[in-house]
Amino acid sequence: MSGMKVEIIAIGDELTSGRILNTTSSYAARQLFEAGYEIHAMHTIGDTPELIGEALKSAISEVDAVLVTGGLGSTDDDLTNEAVSKALNRPTLPNLEVLSIVRTHLDEISPAHVGQLEKLAWLPEGAEVLNPQSCMAGYQLIHDQKPIFFLPGIPSQMKQLLREHVLPRLATWHKDHYLTTYQRLFKIFNLPESEVNRRISTLDLSGDAHIGYYPVFPEVHLSLIIRDKQDSSAEKLFISSCKAINTVLGDAIYGYDRDCMESVTGGLLQRAGRRLAVAESCTGGLIAEKLTAIAGSSNYFLGGVVAYANDLKTQFLDVPADLLKAHGAVSRETAEAMAGGIRNRTGADIGLSVTGVAGPGGGSAEKPVGTVYIGIATTEGTWATHFLFSGDRQQIREMTAQSGLDLVRKYLLQTTGT
Amino acid sequence: MSGMKVEIIAIGDELTSGRILNTTSSYAARQLFEAGYEIHAMHTIGDTPELIGEALKSAISEVDAVLVTGGLGSTDDDLTNEAVSKALNRPTLPNLEVLSIVRTHLDEISPAHVGQLEKLAWLPEGAEVLNPQSCMAGYQLIHDQKPIFFLPGIPSQMKQLLREHVLPRLATWHKDHYLTTYQRLFKIFNLPESEVNRRISTLDLSGDAHIGYYPVFPEVHLSLIIRDKQDSSAEKLFISSCKAINTVLGDAIYGYDRDCMESVTGGLLQRAGRRLAVAESCTGGLIAEKLTAIAGSSNYFLGGVVAYANDLKTQFLDVPADLLKAHGAVSRETAEAMAGGIRNRTGADIGLSVTGVAGPGGGSAEKPVGTVYIGIATTEGTWATHFLFSGDRQQIREMTAQSGLDLVRKYLLQTTGT
Repeated sequence: MSGMKVEIIAIGDELTSGRILNTTSSYAARQLFEAGYEIHAMHTIGDTPELIGEALKSAISEVDAVLVTGGLGSTDDDLTNEAVSKALNRPTLPNLEVLSIVRTHLDEISPAHVGQLEKLAWLPEGAEVLNPQSCMAGYQLIHDQKPIFFLPGIPSQMKQLLREHVLPRLATWHKDHYLTTYQRLFKIFNLPESEVNRRISTLDLSGDAHIGYYPVFPEVHLSLIIRDKQDSSAEKLFISSCKAINTVLGDAIYGYDRDCMESVTGGLLQRAGRRLAVAESCTGGLIAEKLTAIAGSSNYFLGGVVAYANDLKTQFLDVPADLLKAHGAVSRETAEAMAGGIRNRTGADIGLSVTGVAGPGGGSAEKPVGTVYIGIATTEGTWATHFLFSGDRQQIREMTAQSGLDLVRKYLLQTTGT
Repeated sequence: MSGMKVEIIAIGDELTSGRILNTTSSYAARQLFEAGYEIHAMHTIGDTPELIGEALKSAISEVDAVLVTGGLGSTDDDLTNEAVSKALNRPTLPNLEVLSIVRTHLDEISPAHVGQLEKLAWLPEGAEVLNPQSCMAGYQLIHDQKPIFFLPGIPSQMKQLLREHVLPRLATWHKDHYLTTYQRLFKIFNLPESEVNRRISTLDLSGDAHIGYYPVFPEVHLSLIIRDKQDSSAEKLFISSCKAINTVLGDAIYGYDRDCMESVTGGLLQRAGRRLAVAESCTGGLIAEKLTAIAGSSNYFLGGVVAYANDLKTQFLDVPADLLKAHGAVSRETAEAMAGGIRNRTGADIGLSVTGVAGPGGGSAEKPVGTVYIGIATTEGTWATHFLFSGDRQQIREMTAQSGLDLVRKYLLQTTGT
C-alpha cells in the first residue's frame, strides 16, 4: 500500500536561470514527505505558458495531487493563471473576494497600477481562494477529481499557505490514501558508504523498512523510513529497525536527524562540564569556526590559536623551536606539543590540535599531501593520531576538522560514559 | 537566433524527500545560462528507474542537450546507469578505464566490497568517461545526435566536472547553435542591490548588453552578458560597458568572475609584501578559515587567535583586564587593543580584529545583537570601525568576516596604490 502521490511544479525564469535558488520546492517536498505523501517528481520551468500547461497536464495524468508555485503576481511576466486557463480550458473570471480586497488597497495605489493589481483577482474558473482574508495569492482547483494547489513563489507566503491551508486540505482528502511515516536520519562519520551498505545488508530488515544512503561529504547519512499501516506494527518495526542499525554501525553513528558533529561534540562537552581549546595549523580556524557557529558554545569552548606560521606555534603554544626543527611542523611530536600548549595556556580541560599538509603544494615523499596529525591533551595525558586523507585542499581541511571533533567526541564517550 | 536548449535532471530520493536541498541543479542552470544556453526545464526525481527513463526520453525529444546528476554511486539505491541502459537500450558494459582505477584502490579495500565498487565501472554502451584520470563517476553519451552528460550528485564533484569537462565539450558542440558570449561577473560588497540597480540605470547601456543581478549573501553579483553577432561589435560593446560599470560602482566592486574577497585581499597583501594576523572573537575563526582556504596564503597570513573567552584576550592579545572591565569585550577600545595585540605578538604588518554580538543571545539596549567593532593596527596607527549588522547568527558572522577583509582590502588599495 503506497501513499498519495504528489508532484511539485515551480515556475519562474529566475529559477531556470539559476539566479535564485529554488528553496520552496525542497521545503514543500519535505513537508509533504513528512506528512506521509510520496513526491513523484519536482519540476522547475520558466514563465512560459506552453511549458506550464504541458507540465500541469502531465502531472494531473500521473499523480493524485499537484502543487504549483510561482507566477501568480501582478507583473507582466506572471503567466501562471493564463497558462492554467488555456491548459485546463477554464476561462479566467474575476474573483469577487480577491477583487474587493484588492480594491480596498486601491486608494493607497496610483491609478496607473489599478488594472495591474486587479490582474490578481482574475482566476481560472472554479478557483477557490485559499485564504480569502489575506491579499496573498493562492488558490485550489479540483480537476479530474484531483486537488491542484497554486501558491505564490515568495517563500514566506508559500510556506505559510502550505502549512496552514494546503496540508490541512490534503489531510482530509482521500483519507484512505493517507499514511503517517516514521523516519530517522542516521548521521555517520568515518565509515565509507560501501561499508555502511555492507553492514546494513547483513541485517534482515523488513521490506517495509525503506533504507536510503546519502553521502554528504565528509559524512554518510542513512535514512530509515517506515510508513504506517493503520495498525501498531509500523511503530514496533521502526523501533526494532533503529535498534538493529545502531548495533551494526555503533559509534560510527555520531548523531541523528538535525544533529551535526559540532553540535554533538559540543553537547557532550556541555554535559560533561569540560572546556575545550584548539590549536589549528592546516585547518586554519575551521574547527573553531564550526564550534562557534553553535549558539551557546562559549559555555564549553574557550577559543584557540591558528598557528599557521611556525613562529606562532612557539610564541602562542610553547612548541620548542628545536622540536619543530627536529621533527618538522607536520609530525606527531608537534601535534602533541601544540595540544599540550593550548591546554596549558588556556586552562582548558581538553586541548585539541591539528597539523598537516592540506596541499596542493607542500607535500613530500615521507609526508605527502593529506598527511595530518591530530593531537589531544587531557588530564589522562597527551597523544596524537596520524591520518592520510585524500581529496583537494578543502576536502582535506574538512576531513581534518571533522576528525578532530570526532576524536574529542569519542574521548568524551569513553571517559564520561554519556 | 536563440541559444541551445538544455534540460537538467537531478536524481535522488534525498532530493524528492526534501531531506537535502537541490543546489546542484541551480548551480548548473546558472553556469549554463551565463554561458549562453537556454534552460528548458529542470526536473528532480527519486531513484526510480521508470521515472528516470521517462524523464530522460522526454528530455532528449525536447532539447539539444541533457544534464543528468545523481545516482551514479556504488550503493544499491544508485540506479541511474540501470535506468539509462533500459530507457536507451544500451546494455551496461564494464568500462576498462574505470575498472582499472577502481581495482588500483581494491587493495585498500576488503574483498567484500569489490563487487560493489566495480558497479561504478559498469556503464551504458557508448559511455565516454569525462575524466578518466580520476575515480569520479561521470560520463557522456551521444544519443539521437544529442550530448547527454551524467554527473555524480555530490556537489563538489558535480561542479568540477561541469566546469572542467561539460562546458568545454558543449562549447565545441554544434557551433552553429552556439553563440560565443562575452561575459563578466562583477562582485560587489557593501552596496545594496537597489543602489547597484539605481547606479546602473543611470548608464545608457546598449540593449545588447544583458545585465543580471544576483544577490549572493553577503554580496551582490552583477553579470554582464553580450552575445557575439559574428562581427567585431560585440567585443567593443563589452569593453565599453565594463568601463562604464566600473565607473559608477568604483571600489564597491572588489573583484570579478571567480574572485572571492579572501583571494582578492590575499592577492593585495602578497603584491604589497605585507603580512596579516587576525584576532577574532564573534567570528570564532571564520576570517582565518577563509584566508587559509586559499592555497599559498602562508605567504602573507601568519595566523591568529580566536579569543572567544575574555581570559584569552588578555592571555594571548595583552588586552588589559581593566580595559575589558571598563568598556566591555564588545567595544571600540577592546577591538583596537586586540588588533594592536595580535600585531605586536606576531610581528605582522597588519593586525585585524573583530569583536561583536553575533546573537541570538547576548544583546543589550546599548549593544544589540549585530553590534560589531572591527579593529585594524598598522604602521600608520590603530583604529576601529563600528557596525550594526542584521540577520541571524551565521549572517552576522559572515558580514563581520567579509567586512573585516574588505577593510584590509581598502586600506591596502589606499596605502599601496595597487
